[in-house]
Amino acid sequence: MKKRTMYAGDVTAANVNQTVTLMGWVKKRRSLGNLIFVDLRDRAGIVQLVFSADFDQAALDQANSLRSEYVIEATGVVKARKPEAINKNMKTGEIEVEVTELNVLNKAKTPVFDIDDNITASEDTKLKYRFLDLRRPEMQKALMLRSKITMAANRYFDEQGFIYIETPDLTKSTPEGARDYLVPSRVYPGSFYALPQSPQLFKQLLMGAGYDRYFQIAKCFRDEDLRGDRQPEFTQIDMETSFLSAEEIQDLTEGLIVRVMKDVLNIDVPRPFKRIEWQDAMDRFGSDKPDLRFGMELQDAAPFVKDAGFKVFDNALANGGQVKAIVLPGAAQKYSRKMIDKQAEYIKRFGAHGLAWLKVEDDKVAGPIAKFFADSKELTDGLGAKSGDMIMFIADRAKVVADTLGYLRTYYGKDLDLIDQSQYKFAWVVNWPLFEYDEGDERWVPAHHPFTMPNEEDVHLLDTDPHKAHAQSYDIILNGYELGGGSIRIHTREIQEKMLKALDFTPERAEEQFGFLLNALEFGFPPHGGLAIGLDRFAMLLAGKDNIRDVIAFPKNSNATEPMTHAPQPVEASQLLPLGIEVTPEAEAEQEAEADAQTEE
Amino acid sequence: MKKRTMYAGDVTAANVNQTVTLMGWVKKRRSLGNLIFVDLRDRAGIVQLVFSADFDQAALDQANSLRSEYVIEATGVVKARKPEAINKNMKTGEIEVEVTELNVLNKAKTPVFDIDDNITASEDTKLKYRFLDLRRPEMQKALMLRSKITMAANRYFDEQGFIYIETPDLTKSTPEGARDYLVPSRVYPGSFYALPQSPQLFKQLLMGAGYDRYFQIAKCFRDEDLRGDRQPEFTQIDMETSFLSAEEIQDLTEGLIVRVMKDVLNIDVPRPFKRIEWQDAMDRFGSDKPDLRFGMELQDAAPFVKDAGFKVFDNALANGGQVKAIVLPGAAQKYSRKMIDKQAEYIKRFGAHGLAWLKVEDDKVAGPIAKFFADSKELTDGLGAKSGDMIMFIADRAKVVADTLGYLRTYYGKDLDLIDQSQYKFAWVVNWPLFEYDEGDERWVPAHHPFTMPNEEDVHLLDTDPHKAHAQSYDIILNGYELGGGSIRIHTREIQEKMLKALDFTPERAEEQFGFLLNALEFGFPPHGGLAIGLDRFAMLLAGKDNIRDVIAFPKNSNATEPMTHAPQPVEASQLLPLGIEVTPEAEAEQEAEADAQTEE
Repeated sequence: MKKRTMYAGDVTAANVNQTVTLMGWVKKRRSLGNLIFVDLRDRAGIVQLVFSADFDQAALDQANSLRSEYVIEATGVVKARKPEAINKNMKTGEIEVEVTELNVLNKAKTPVFDIDDNITASEDTKLKYRFLDLRRPEMQKALMLRSKITMAANRYFDEQGFIYIETPDLTKSTPEGARDYLVPSRVYPGSFYALPQSPQLFKQLLMGAGYDRYFQIAKCFRDEDLRGDRQPEFTQIDMETSFLSAEEIQDLTEGLIVRVMKDVLNIDVPRPFKRIEWQDAMDRFGSDKPDLRFGMELQDAAPFVKDAGFKVFDNALANGGQVKAIVLPGAAQKYSRKMIDKQAEYIKRFGAHGLAWLKVEDDKVAGPIAKFFADSKELTDGLGAKSGDMIMFIADRAKVVADTLGYLRTYYGKDLDLIDQSQYKFAWVVNWPLFEYDEGDERWVPAHHPFTMPNEEDVHLLDTDPHKAHAQSYDIILNGYELGGGSIRIHTREIQEKMLKALDFTPERAEEQFGFLLNALEFGFPPHGGLAIGLDRFAMLLAGKDNIRDVIAFPKNSNATEPMTHAPQPVEASQLLPLGIEVTPEAEAEQEAEADAQTEE
Repeated sequence: MKKRTMYAGDVTAANVNQTVTLMGWVKKRRSLGNLIFVDLRDRAGIVQLVFSADFDQAALDQANSLRSEYVIEATGVVKARKPEAINKNMKTGEIEVEVTELNVLNKAKTPVFDIDDNITASEDTKLKYRFLDLRRPEMQKALMLRSKITMAANRYFDEQGFIYIETPDLTKSTPEGARDYLVPSRVYPGSFYALPQSPQLFKQLLMGAGYDRYFQIAKCFRDEDLRGDRQPEFTQIDMETSFLSAEEIQDLTEGLIVRVMKDVLNIDVPRPFKRIEWQDAMDRFGSDKPDLRFGMELQDAAPFVKDAGFKVFDNALANGGQVKAIVLPGAAQKYSRKMIDKQAEYIKRFGAHGLAWLKVEDDKVAGPIAKFFADSKELTDGLGAKSGDMIMFIADRAKVVADTLGYLRTYYGKDLDLIDQSQYKFAWVVNWPLFEYDEGDERWVPAHHPFTMPNEEDVHLLDTDPHKAHAQSYDIILNGYELGGGSIRIHTREIQEKMLKALDFTPERAEEQFGFLLNALEFGFPPHGGLAIGLDRFAMLLAGKDNIRDVIAFPKNSNATEPMTHAPQPVEASQLLPLGIEVTPEAEAEQEAEADAQTEE
């Protein structure tokens, strides 16, 4: 093997007449007359190799033997292409490399799918042959982009005086939040570590220990059911600081975002970012992470509909609910009644009982409830609806109105192509409630986590009306996604105990779960706060993907398995014995049944 | 809370007459006449605050109420100290801050031990109160140094075109190496992931996928019995490259080391590093990771003792063994016969049957075997021993000689103070055997791992005499420690299968364990290789510590437990049920007995 002189994809007209040695994969080979052309691919791109008839026959035979994905070393002279052969769409399109020496470094079986963007292989096939999937240029671009984000974050925090500190992965199980992944201990058979859901308590302890500014690229683990932007393991850009206000932490974060956007995409993001009150976000967008790339805001329709005599609206308002609307610009012709009915069916999942709508035609409105609005000018003027627009109403209690219209706004924003995909609209959502009501579990839960500091003027509410308190927390949002979140943390035992009490912890359970934190808080904790950004999601958004699997080198599929290595797998009983655990007879039977089924296939 | 203007430990004479606002911990308070002095500590250091009598009484009372580890905010004017009060040993020793405004941000209980270097608290007490232990300046210095290493590595690899790629932590169990930590799966009850012992196979797959240059700060996990430089979780600076020779990878690594040493310690390390053949290292130093800061090399004594008539030596040589010696300079007076006898007892663990020795006195030798060397000049000249020196001999088979004399060399090198502690002697140990014989398990095992490429000329030996093959592997050593290791990897299925066969894998077991790798190797793998450096050990050595616990924020103790959070712990049966596992009755009984014992305490 020779020494490579440069990447194949980097050879340009500037290298004409230079002798280069390139290494890479054969993308394709074709013959034209007595010439052989080979597209050679490496991580930088593709360059055209040409084997001319001057080449000796043995070498030509070797060139003719090349197949897709063979790994080769090619030495040759860079030549300018003839004008008619120039490919302006390729970085290397003005040149080709006339090969003088070829060396096959490794052969390859025919790949299971083409090493190309826009392939049709199934997700599991792509994951099973991930080493091939990862060769595709779009995957390489996505992972390189992710690397650039990581490197930009490292540089930024380092410059800002942050200390990179690794927190442990074998920690204590805290069953309150999401489900923990457990790790059996061998030294104490029958005991378990848990993999961290986040470094939250450790980074707080580091503030208690005086490190002042901490950051980490931190792997986190949650054993939850998967969906598009969830994986069993995911990565946070995690930071914590002491003695700073929420605004100062937000300011530091904006610096990070601006740096990343510049370094990675060469985009200048203006500062400061917009700040939206949580209540305002819910009122105007029906979401705590609104997509700000388009308008179509939620509007209070009550003033314009309250006297119309439509019972559904009247009842909602009479019961303390809301009637709110969005105006779909130019949508009147686009959506048939059937399509709208289908949508009305879909939104039942948000608790909505129906979807009222009007189409605006010149100075009239049309649709099932048009008869209540014979004189529609006040309504259309009030909502800013013009001829050709469509109005959708939801009349219900506030949460249902927000959830449903929030969904409809996003859906029709996309469907009506109102979103400028080239934009990155960052904003802060601030002044969150400290608690939110979990309708499934029928109890109040922390809107962020139990270590979040209430607003100073609300601390007293912890004793009386905890769920009325607001929190010193803040989420950073981007294009309809929560990019990250943080808060000022509780730094005294007294408030932390009150917080846990408000969450129905008995003193015993508080001690058992968080005794080490409560104890530590008594030994001189500084005021502190921080933030974590979801690196997978950040990379996904900057790479223009809609699944975080596309920015993770070896992700799990939706069953949390890894089709290439077949993890997870049964293990030998001898591996479990020293851990003091055994597989239950039920699980054993189930595994055997599955193994049998697979054998029969 | 005000805005901090600078770190307390950074205030110097350059700030005189400036008004500063500082935040930190009260290290101590003392009164002198009507003045109150407070040492304020933050991560940058300590500054002296002074509260003068001009201060109003309420404020003075507040200052008087300060206790150790209270967290305070102090605003004041920087004043030059009077010449007689200047403390040249402190960075801030020429100034003090005359406080005009004091704000107690948090109180603190009396710390369990002093926040000072050189405390006597037990290791478990320090770990239980790790948030206090981590406040100690030496711990802060060590963790900041570790962060600097990490940041220097990130910068270096980024500049060199490496891509930062995160490999998975929930992977497949490979029971060949060390013991895996297992993670039960909920989606497939009774199945398990394993935490990675290293990203080895994933980084190789990334080379197969064309990423060309990969690196990662990678957490690794091994469930092994602990000792000073082992922890259940540890961190590697991990890299892999394609199309490079072993020398080129070593060259890249040297660049990293030089960068780290410059950025972290401002030390210029000369390049290229010394290269030592593995056999040479064993012969001369009795170790594959020799400390090169001192000489005292192992010497072949056979030519000078073969005719002496000492049976022990004669027998060793007759049986194909060796007689080797080290010369302890100026040690003749230092070690009594009793001390040497104790050492002779100790080295039995290396298989040594005895320790022969001579003291050189003028032109004679003394000691139990001196009678065999009445004419000792040839011996002492041959070994370079001078009057006042001591010679220690080991006569045995090569491995015992190397292990024993290697140990003795290190022991006496330290004890005789031959080591310049300020030196950092990096070197490469190259040309390793591919296999080494495990005397405990009585079988050949890979000297590195089963993916290591044999030397090209030795590939054929895999079929015939695999244990005679040498490998394209290399370790980087520092001051008697293995800092890291790497190799060129096998990149064809054919050689990989031969390697596994040489390790007694049946084809079935090879397929079951490593089928995904064997499969991948058929689809066009480039020649590749890499290296991993133990970050914990590197940080430990640069921080001048002798336990990696001192450079890990939240380490485990020697029982792999974490005395602060009490991880690992028993968990609720309801947490195990969905995982398809249960604690065995034996482990259950053991846990109950332990719980009872603790209650009784």
